This record gives sequence, structure tokens and C-alpha cells, in this order.
Amino acid sequence: MASLSQQTRAFASTARPALRPARLSRRPAMAAQAALSQDELKKQAAHKAVEYVKSGMVVGLGTGSTAAFAVDRIGELLKSGALKNIICVPTSIRTFEQATALGIPLATLDEQPKLDVAIDGADEVDPNLDVVKGRGGALLREKMVEMASKQFVCIVDDTKMVAGLGGSKLAMPVEIVQFCWKYNLTRLANLPSVKGCEAKLRLNGDGSKYVTDNSNYIVDLYFTTPIKDSAAAAREIAALEGVVDHGLFLDMVDVCIIAGKTGVEVKERKKK
Amino acid sequence: MASLSQQTRAFASTARPALRPARLSRRPAMAAQAALSQDELKKQAAHKAVEYVKSGMVVGLGTGSTAAFAVDRIGELLKSGALKNIICVPTSIRTFEQATALGIPLATLDEQPKLDVAIDGADEVDPNLDVVKGRGGALLREKMVEMASKQFVCIVDDTKMVAGLGGSKLAMPVEIVQFCWKYNLTRLANLPSVKGCEAKLRLNGDGSKYVTDNSNYIVDLYFTTPIKDSAAAAREIAALEGVVDHGLFLDMVDVCIIAGKTGVEVKERKKK
Repeated sequence: MASLSQQTRAFASTARPALRPARLSRRPAMAAQAALSQDELKKQAAHKAVEYVKSGMVVGLGTGSTAAFAVDRIGELLKSGALKNIICVPTSIRTFEQATALGIPLATLDEQPKLDVAIDGADEVDPNLDVVKGRGGALLREKMVEMASKQFVCIVDDTKMVAGLGGSKLAMPVEIVQFCWKYNLTRLANLPSVKGCEAKLRLNGDGSKYVTDNSNYIVDLYFTTPIKDSAAAAREIAALEGVVDHGLFLDMVDVCIIAGKTGVEVKERKKK
Repeated sequence: MASLSQQTRAFASTARPALRPARLSRRPAMAAQAALSQDELKKQAAHKAVEYVKSGMVVGLGTGSTAAFAVDRIGELLKSGALKNIICVPTSIRTFEQATALGIPLATLDEQPKLDVAIDGADEVDPNLDVVKGRGGALLREKMVEMASKQFVCIVDDTKMVAGLGGSKLAMPVEIVQFCWKYNLTRLANLPSVKGCEAKLRLNGDGSKYVTDNSNYIVDLYFTTPIKDSAAAAREIAALEGVVDHGLFLDMVDVCIIAGKTGVEVKERKKK
């Protein structure tokens, strides 16, 4: 396991300030009470997910407001002694910092290439437990860590459930190299499987181009109707030269924990 | 068509000094006369390729010592008036600079997304005209430009012909994101389709890590025997999260012009 200073260097080498994208559509601001309630749901899902973590495991830590509750919970259980001897692999500098502050032992995939369980939120979940992730911009690191894990536990509140991916009308991100980004934006928008979507380069609040931790740009795809064949979309998007990765996480989630007003539901992927 | 200053900016935005990689195996130094002769062969192939360029076309310009002869030839023909009204899309800053010095009108894929013909060299060519490219580090931009072209004319001297890709025992490059490169290097080396290859991170002459124009690293794969199934290798390599692109250019070359001691041979891809 790397020392803290090694960890910091590993992250610092490619990290940059997290700027909040401006053009990324968001849900309407909610009244304070409703917002609290949604946070409570996220927390419930996160705590349920942490039940999958056992002492001695290597654990992937996701990024975002829901995943943050899971990180907090793991910190609590380590402190109380209920969990021992775990090593966590964070998916972003934000999560790295949160976990460091909580005293959670950390490593990178270079040091711990095999994970037992990864816990992360999602932006959309469909009935097959295929998900859209990456609105926060960390999609590639999240996909790398979650693909490296035996089990991926996804945690959401029930507002994230959709009948089909793209159905929330919020962004489905695609990470592309900077070189000739207009060319690739046009090619993305014209792929048969995402026909009719609107493709927009992600910008920061100040109008500058959003740059990922990997020095790439993000094109956000917005759909008016859900994607009909998400496997075809994933294939076509990934096949374009200059696409680094995309927010369609298909056949990856093993367990989805959904918190709603009536309680917490645990769904397991149907084995094919 | 963009002005020259726009062009310069477009390239400068992501360009970095071209450092020669140190660990990249190279052919043994040849005697001066033999070297001249190989250059003469490259020039013959390049001049033959430029016969595919007609006035009014949009033309992709490759990178490397053989492609440079084609760029020179296009410059000559424009100057003499034998070619008129062409626009060229360069695949690297080096080629951009050469073409600019020759007064060749240039554009990027953003401005000219559809090319009529692209001319470029290759590091290896197999009997099906599948090729390995990218030892110079420009693989992604080359692939983007050549995939955008109706016709891709590959030019080589006959030392580049191999019975199977990987057979030259020189590097087959894979461009990967910097994040957790050791993890991806190990995963590359362990893919079933490239079993037994040696995977090395590409370094500069001073021992620092080689960084591509897209801010990525390169892992070079070295084979002791040719790749058995290059389509499977391309699929497996591309499927790894964090791989940006690779040097296997399959089903892309339409015409291969091979210059040897006994003359210039023109091979066309068999239609499937």
C-alpha cells in the first residue's frame, strides 16, 4: 500500500481543479425540506451498500453526493472497529480527499488491481440495472475502478430510475480527445443509434471548455426520447477514434440499492 | 478553409515538442549508401502515391520519413501548377510545419471532415494490407484522418513487409491515459490475443515518460512471433478502459505502394 504522500502525488499528477460545468442541465432547485429528504434517501441507500463491505476487502469508492455518504459510513465503521484491514481505491480527487480526511487507507489500481466491491451512485438506472454515469466528469476513472471489481453496488434515490437510458433528458457524457473535437461532436450526433440527440461540448461556468482529469473534453448528449438500443449506442460511440470513454455503464451493476419514500429496495442483476 | 494563423493555433493548442523515444527499438544503422538507397525507394513510392491526388481534392498528409516525400511532391506539383485547388489535412505538427513551409493550403478535420485521399507510411504491412502504424507517436491523429478518407494510400519500402503483424519485432504502440498506466500496461500484456508479448512504457531519451500530442502515454508491445489474430487483438485492446487507440490499422488501407530494388509494386485491397 502506498504512503499518503505517494497517494497525493499519484492523484496530483493528473488532477485539476474541479470546475462545475455551467451548461450541464440540472434538476430544478428543490425546497430545503425536500432536498433534505432526498439526502436522507441517499444516505439510507449508502448505508445499506456498505453492508456489502467486509473486513479485509479492497473497496472502490465512487464519486458524487450519494457515494460520499458511503465513504462517510466506511470511515465511521473503521473508527468504531466494526470494519478492519480494508484498503479503498477512490475514483476522483474529491473522493480521495474525503477518504483521506476520514483516515481511510487508500491505494490506486496500480497497487490494487483487483477489488472485492465498488460502491458508487449513478445518474440514471434502467429496469435492467444498466446505468448512465459521469455527469460529474469522472466517468473514465469510475469505469476503470468498477470494471476492476468483483461486485459493483450502485446506490441511488428513486428519482434516478428511468424506463430507458437517456430518459431523464439530462446529459449522457462522452469523453473525447481535444484534437478536432468539433469533428467528433458532429460524428457523435450523427450516429444511427443516438439519432436525434443534441450534442453539446461541456463548458465551465466561465464559458471555458471543461477539461477532465485526463486532459480531455466532454460532449454531453441530450435525448428527447430514451435510447432504443443502448448496447448499440455504446458500441458505436466507443468505435469512433478520439472517443476515450462514455457514460453508458452496461452489464456492470451487480446490485442496485434504491432508496424511496417507502423504503430501501435491493435489486440484483438477473444472470444471463 | 482556416487562415494560417488559425491553423497554427489549432495545432499549437495541443502540440508539444517531438521528443524521440529512447527505448523504441530501431533497425540497425545502415551504411550511408544503403540508407540513401532506402530513401530513394521511399521517394519512388511517395511519388507514385501522389498520382492518386487530383486537382480539387481534400488530401490527408501522413507523418514520417516516407510521407514527407509525398508532402514534398504535392508542394512541387502545386508550385508547377500541375495540381490546383487542393486542401490538405496534416496528421501531426511536424507535417503541418513541412506543408506550411511549402505553401500547401491546410485545414483540420473540424473544417474538412471528408477527405478524398490520405497518403501515409506504415511501420509494418501484412499480406492482407493490414498495417501497424504509430511508432512516431501520432497514431490517433493518423487514424482519425485516414478513417475520414474515401481512399487511404499506404506507402512503404519493401523492408516493411511482414508475414504477420508484430513480425518485425519492433514496437506496436498503444496510446493510454496517464491515470493508472501500470494497471493498464499489465492488463495489455495479459490479453489472450497478445499473450507472450513484452509491454514497455515508452520513454524519452532523458528517461522521462513520452507524452503524446493528446497528453497520453504510449505502451509499446513487442512480439517474438507475429500476432495470430490481429482483429481479436484490436478488439481486446480497444475494449480496455483507458486505452485511447492503438497502432493496428485493420481494413483501412485501400492501396499499398511498395518500393523495392526491382521497382514499385501497387497492391489493392481485395474487396470482401
